Amino acid sequence: MLNRITETLLMGPGPSTVTKSVLEALAQPTIGHLDPRFIDIMDNVKSMLRTVFETSNALTMPLSGTGSAGMEATFANLVEPGDRVLVLVNGVFGKRMQDVATRLGGEVTTVEFEWGTPVRPEQVQAALADQSFDVIAVVHAETSTGVGNPIDEIATLVQRTDALFVVDTVTSLGGIPVTVDAWKADAVYSGTQKCLSCPPGLAPFTLSDRARARLDRRTRPVPNWYLDLSLLTSYWEGAKRSYHHTAPINMIYALDRALENVLEEGLAAAHTRHREAHEQLAAGLPEIGLSLFVEPAFRLPMLNAVTVPDGVDEATVRKRLLEEFDIEIGAGLGPLAGKIWRIGLMGESARPHHVERLLDAMKTILQ
Amino acid sequence: MLNRITETLLMGPGPSTVTKSVLEALAQPTIGHLDPRFIDIMDNVKSMLRTVFETSNALTMPLSGTGSAGMEATFANLVEPGDRVLVLVNGVFGKRMQDVATRLGGEVTTVEFEWGTPVRPEQVQAALADQSFDVIAVVHAETSTGVGNPIDEIATLVQRTDALFVVDTVTSLGGIPVTVDAWKADAVYSGTQKCLSCPPGLAPFTLSDRARARLDRRTRPVPNWYLDLSLLTSYWEGAKRSYHHTAPINMIYALDRALENVLEEGLAAAHTRHREAHEQLAAGLPEIGLSLFVEPAFRLPMLNAVTVPDGVDEATVRKRLLEEFDIEIGAGLGPLAGKIWRIGLMGESARPHHVERLLDAMKTILQ
Repeated sequence: MLNRITETLLMGPGPSTVTKSVLEALAQPTIGHLDPRFIDIMDNVKSMLRTVFETSNALTMPLSGTGSAGMEATFANLVEPGDRVLVLVNGVFGKRMQDVATRLGGEVTTVEFEWGTPVRPEQVQAALADQSFDVIAVVHAETSTGVGNPIDEIATLVQRTDALFVVDTVTSLGGIPVTVDAWKADAVYSGTQKCLSCPPGLAPFTLSDRARARLDRRTRPVPNWYLDLSLLTSYWEGAKRSYHHTAPINMIYALDRALENVLEEGLAAAHTRHREAHEQLAAGLPEIGLSLFVEPAFRLPMLNAVTVPDGVDEATVRKRLLEEFDIEIGAGLGPLAGKIWRIGLMGESARPHHVERLLDAMKTILQ
Repeated sequence: MLNRITETLLMGPGPSTVTKSVLEALAQPTIGHLDPRFIDIMDNVKSMLRTVFETSNALTMPLSGTGSAGMEATFANLVEPGDRVLVLVNGVFGKRMQDVATRLGGEVTTVEFEWGTPVRPEQVQAALADQSFDVIAVVHAETSTGVGNPIDEIATLVQRTDALFVVDTVTSLGGIPVTVDAWKADAVYSGTQKCLSCPPGLAPFTLSDRARARLDRRTRPVPNWYLDLSLLTSYWEGAKRSYHHTAPINMIYALDRALENVLEEGLAAAHTRHREAHEQLAAGLPEIGLSLFVEPAFRLPMLNAVTVPDGVDEATVRKRLLEEFDIEIGAGLGPLAGKIWRIGLMGESARPHHVERLLDAMKTILQ
């Protein structure tokens, strides 16, 4: 089957285009999960993840599943039945947090915002005045709408409470600043296939010491053996590593290389590159009769929701981009299905020549 | 870090040696998880997994986690709080099933057998005479001891009950016959990094229609969004695929290739090769003063527990094998730590010249 796979410029909501160096790392010989050489790689990955997350949290590691497994692990470990959870919802991934926490027995309250608009701190403040919560959760970069939420302001409000603060950085990490320690965030997860330009399959994750202490006070075991952080740390930490599950060795090679790439470029430079690619796209869209769906102040650089013009069949445009131009862009989800395209400028896809190539292709199709 | 990775002959309990063709597949360009070309690969993988599992189950697919995620998914979906679960335990992975099912609220009964000995059907029969169960679970190939359990006989007993039958085939699939339909097994999971010779990271999984109907009758949602089979099938089945989570694209390329390799060789030929490699090892061990820990009738071909001779430091032998000979073998777990080595002859590692290389190296070290 695989001979049909040609290089494709991935400008959807993720996965993003993966560089050759990361694909080469992925294909290095598999070694054992307790091999001292692999332990060194694990330690290197942990250290680089701390830099990228801007945290000194000891418990910082990739989990063996995609970004959604990071969300699952967060709530499975931090929420016990009856715990009060506040989720700030302005898109698919906020809704998903609500679903995940509810399934785990959390008493979930949401504050909802129109899709395409950000979480409003004043409404969060009002919700916090009413009730107290054990956990407060929000998505940094809402991949379904292209909206960035004001985590700095929300963090300030959360810090006035005793709640643990959960932030989903699946789409933001590597593309805009993710400042875990400055936010005093307690559990933060991401994915590899967005701004880190690594294939999907791992969930970078970090947990504060305060949240870790909360884990130790759980009254019942985590109802998820696979993602139980106390068990996972026996493999990922300390002088003697104990087998928990067999780590996805080659995926961790790839993440190791992807993180080295990000740090070689420098986090600040990577953020600037994402912003400039976004500005280039935003400037080019009106020239081909297109406009961005989100207000300028709340736009994410790496996820651009573009309004589908009246009379245009959005699926046909995506199909032609893929088949004739080898470019993938994404469709809208939920209430935004058929109304927007989602153009990802993530990681290696956020380069001037790629933006130009996309604009040219869309121009050809739409004219 | 990766320049330190050299090819290593993996003869531990998994991962096994991964062939070049699979590593090459892993490094093919990443494409989108809803790309029609990727949907074709998914369909191909599903179809080949049905052949390898010897099943016609519609719900047959790889889950986005390692073999242990397959175990987690099985119990998370099939066990509701208060369900009566019987686990047959004769090693680490039976104990793990007990732990997983208990965390999910199952009322778990175990029948335990000495490690290194098989599950005895007569004791299972006695347990089934006493009580009825909703789920009965057993490990086919107990990776911690090298014992094969008599699934055919256990299956016959389980079929006289209404219980769902769960079989862990993490280490057996591809190495000895796994006959899901003949066993009338309801949920069977495996791992990619054993006899399929693919890197770790996915859990091949199959569910019977009967078990699927049981899912539809659940009284509460699966407490694990990431591994909820009803949600996963909306992505893996049908004409219109809906996004659930972003599939580990490149890992699925690798599994696609690994399954093609197995089917090109032929399942029966692969089983014969595993058996012959085991016989070669079993014949060679006494010549260097070593013996197998398990009685001949219950030995697995792909996982050979070798008794550590008195006066030998088992860790030193493993260290020298790895550092001087680029060969990995495994240590004992739990009560067998320090007492056995675990020599895996899985997938590509089960070749005559590899067995010879290992025996020569051990001879040099032990003499």
